[in-house]
Amino acid sequence: MPIILGVDPGSRITGFGIIRADGRNIEYIDSGCIRVGEKPMAERLQTIFHSLATLIGEYRPEEFAIEQVFMARNPDSALKLGQARGAAIVSAANSGLAVHEYSARQVKQAVVGKGGADKSQVQHMVQALLALSRKPQADAADALAIALCHAHMSQSVLRVAGAGGKVRGGRMRQK
Amino acid sequence: MPIILGVDPGSRITGFGIIRADGRNIEYIDSGCIRVGEKPMAERLQTIFHSLATLIGEYRPEEFAIEQVFMARNPDSALKLGQARGAAIVSAANSGLAVHEYSARQVKQAVVGKGGADKSQVQHMVQALLALSRKPQADAADALAIALCHAHMSQSVLRVAGAGGKVRGGRMRQK
Repeated sequence: MPIILGVDPGSRITGFGIIRADGRNIEYIDSGCIRVGEKPMAERLQTIFHSLATLIGEYRPEEFAIEQVFMARNPDSALKLGQARGAAIVSAANSGLAVHEYSARQVKQAVVGKGGADKSQVQHMVQALLALSRKPQADAADALAIALCHAHMSQSVLRVAGAGGKVRGGRMRQK
Repeated sequence: MPIILGVDPGSRITGFGIIRADGRNIEYIDSGCIRVGEKPMAERLQTIFHSLATLIGEYRPEEFAIEQVFMARNPDSALKLGQARGAAIVSAANSGLAVHEYSARQVKQAVVGKGGADKSQVQHMVQALLALSRKPQADAADALAIALCHAHMSQSVLRVAGAGGKVRGGRMRQK
């Protein structure tokens, strides 16, 4: 199982998380946030596109996982979220990555074992599963959770790791 | 005034229209549709991204105009529209084009002279203003209207053309 890039896109902050899920081992590689808060819209989307392309060039993930959005809160925020998603997905697809989508429920189920888990439980379990020295930032944690969900769905490695697999922790960075 | 690319993005059909607005002359260059109907979502976005990049490479527009979306119908369609917009805007911005947004009202006002004009009036006026031999397809017409709106806003060339400027018509293609 190769390197997985999980992304949690947003119009202001896009979280990313990169893990390696190799047989019984899950290894934390990197995570952080792409912050585009105050720029004009086209520049925001370009920054998301190029930042992900740079991460992909650096870490060479083979898989890309993103959260499926079923019910956005309102049309205006859905449009902005869609634009950020579009920029992120095109960046991944252009680099030849397979794009996988998971519902929030699937992600929580895979990471916490409970589809209705709250954000702090996800953050806590991401920290525990990846043996991180501190709690990841919320968007980075969501992105790591999506990557973990993809690893789980592809190979059930999480269960294996939980039953004695090796987990290598790592440092986090903010971007 | 240089070459303008107008784009009307959609999750299934993205219209494009290319015009040259040079001083008193407006020239039709190309228009058509990028149809991505039945592909998986990531492929659709990639097709929009690459088709626009190809058009930009071919015609070398300096300006990019897109319709501003104020009120999408519902969160689900807003998300899909947002994704298509994100792919289109990133493609234009990556090619170094300035991105301009106009409201539907501004586009109709510029092309028909009435902010509340309906689609068939826009199609009719686009055909007349660009001296086209036949009515452009609806999405292509919208894209051409957006390009005409940008020309109008930048230079008021439409008014000048209406008062005796030369308009060169052209052939349309479907893509």
